[in-house]
Amino acid sequence: MKLNIALLAGDGIGPEVIDQAVKVSDAIAKKFNHEINWKPALTGAAAIDAVGEPYPDETHEICASSDAVLFGAIGHPRFDNDPSAKVRPEQGLLKMRKKLGLFANVRPTFTFPSLLDKSPLKRERIEGTDLVFLRELTGGIYFGEKGRRDEGETAFDNCVYTREEVKRLAKKGFELAMTRGKKLCCVDKANVLETSRLWRETVQAMEKDYPEVEVSYEFVDAVAMRLVQWPNSYDVLITENLFGDILTDEASVISGSMGLMPSASLGADIGLFEPIHGSYPQATGLNIANPMATVLSAAMMFENFGLQEEGKAIRNAVNKALNEGIVTEDLADGGKSYGTKEVGDWLAENV
Amino acid sequence: MKLNIALLAGDGIGPEVIDQAVKVSDAIAKKFNHEINWKPALTGAAAIDAVGEPYPDETHEICASSDAVLFGAIGHPRFDNDPSAKVRPEQGLLKMRKKLGLFANVRPTFTFPSLLDKSPLKRERIEGTDLVFLRELTGGIYFGEKGRRDEGETAFDNCVYTREEVKRLAKKGFELAMTRGKKLCCVDKANVLETSRLWRETVQAMEKDYPEVEVSYEFVDAVAMRLVQWPNSYDVLITENLFGDILTDEASVISGSMGLMPSASLGADIGLFEPIHGSYPQATGLNIANPMATVLSAAMMFENFGLQEEGKAIRNAVNKALNEGIVTEDLADGGKSYGTKEVGDWLAENV
Ligand SMILES: CC(C)[C@H](C(=O)O)[C@@H](O)C(=O)O
Ligand SMILES: CC(C)[C@H](C(=O)O)[C@@H](O)C(=O)O
Repeated sequence: MKLNIALLAGDGIGPEVIDQAVKVSDAIAKKFNHEINWKPALTGAAAIDAVGEPYPDETHEICASSDAVLFGAIGHPRFDNDPSAKVRPEQGLLKMRKKLGLFANVRPTFTFPSLLDKSPLKRERIEGTDLVFLRELTGGIYFGEKGRRDEGETAFDNCVYTREEVKRLAKKGFELAMTRGKKLCCVDKANVLETSRLWRETVQAMEKDYPEVEVSYEFVDAVAMRLVQWPNSYDVLITENLFGDILTDEASVISGSMGLMPSASLGADIGLFEPIHGSYPQATGLNIANPMATVLSAAMMFENFGLQEEGKAIRNAVNKALNEGIVTEDLADGGKSYGTKEVGDWLAENV
Repeated sequence: MKLNIALLAGDGIGPEVIDQAVKVSDAIAKKFNHEINWKPALTGAAAIDAVGEPYPDETHEICASSDAVLFGAIGHPRFDNDPSAKVRPEQGLLKMRKKLGLFANVRPTFTFPSLLDKSPLKRERIEGTDLVFLRELTGGIYFGEKGRRDEGETAFDNCVYTREEVKRLAKKGFELAMTRGKKLCCVDKANVLETSRLWRETVQAMEKDYPEVEVSYEFVDAVAMRLVQWPNSYDVLITENLFGDILTDEASVISGSMGLMPSASLGADIGLFEPIHGSYPQATGLNIANPMATVLSAAMMFENFGLQEEGKAIRNAVNKALNEGIVTEDLADGGKSYGTKEVGDWLAENV
């Protein structure tokens, strides 16, 4: 296969972890006879510094004309605690999602046996956890009309969903469930919100097309509880943008493997793949950041191209590294640890 | 003191647990020389059955003319999974909050040493947890305009806040923080929502009036994580209605003492006090429901009248019961357990 991949390294540790994912992907390409053409582009604070914009048009053109986007991390402390700053890295993120039509954010939460004890939860609560959130990413209250009236004394945000938006997300959810445990949970607040009632009725109407999938409907507040109590009772969960923002972050910490979690954002054409962790500015350039989440994001990218073997090879290498202790200091428990680059090299050699 | 208390027992185990709280409150009244005049009224499914409405006008009049409301639980399985039912118990709840002006929902999460091991979280994560959420309860997306357009294909919910609404909630938050650990966390999504930016700027402007309170601002997704990681790092948290719905439920399961958590909903005049647990229809009439959360809600009620000693006496009795194993089967760990009524009797004797 010939693949054009846009490479958005971003801020903080982004460039370092992206380098490792590139190295591993190139090793996979060599092994399986693919050709990857990497196309670097600016984003985040780095782009604001260079051209005054977190998601410049030039970057968009590179992404839109690629087969996929591999993304590092964005965010810089100088934008924190100043939500009213004129130009913010987050705006670039939202613009990118919207312009690339990335309507489905795929966030798996799974456990690595060797990391179970890192979880804040007791072992017996999380063992076997393997769930995936599909979060709607280009609609809802994030993108509805918002503003002020009464001379700034009243603020409003509109949450809007169309049946089509719900359908295309739910379709991905049903399809994903069919490849996994065949359980789908629709998370909403249908006892209060009209948009949630639209979600629920739309999903209910689709049930007949997937007779094998067992569908449940739970309120967002109940899921926020059950995720902590029995995360391993879930398989695939679908939900709207804001609920997904909150719940996927909650889910990410329960597995104890947060620093290793990859994600994908999918649209009609193109997919974007990124680690769920942030840009950890404090670790920038120190060669200590864990590159595994980004490397596993590359695995998701290959799998999304239908290249299951390639993805599997990466996942196996990561498992092997974890078992053999080829890990960065965050996972070393005070024992021997390796640098970001060294872990990347090891993975590239072992895929 | 002469107290008129509206008594809304509600559905399921509501009446049983309310009975115990009444018994304990009467014992307190006797001990401290108060006079309580209980005024029972219908609510929830019980009220729907009797008069076709979950919060009848007559009930409202009784509540509005009382000094406080003691509330059991509402909800009945026949209304579940039917969000489009014409009359629902939840509507009664929302109407009651709005009509009584209960704008501040106070939800403490604390630990009982003897129950720590019931938590899904590891002991070292939760030890010492003692936080309070102040959730705004009569505004936001719950009460904004909602509906459909495009022949039902598009749904919308409007989230609206005024500066005054934020101020009165935040004021309670600052005041509460002053009586506790002097830390206040404002939970919002100011990187995306205009209403959140109004929240943040309003709270920022109030900081100078409470120079002793250390204020932090965190995004709702980050709090959803940190609540699981380090719940004991929080003191008082203030937030808007929907975020509060999700986060208070998440917080309630981390302590391991969920079945014991009381809550209060406060307004300008009147307060409503209720356990956070539901109506547990399966346990109805079996004399097995744990009455302690409702009894502790009565303690909050006394404290809200400025009767600290009275509240303390109830809390001490509950602690003593826990230490001596005078508990219902949910807390008995397979050992000796007592009925709802017996635990209530014991508490009434020991306050
Ligand atoms: C940075 C922010 C706008 C973003 C979101 O809320 O979507 C982030 O929290 C995420 O989940 O990717
Ligand atoms: C029943 C429902 C409407 C209610 C809410 O969302 O406020 C409940 O979840 C609560 O938290 O009291």
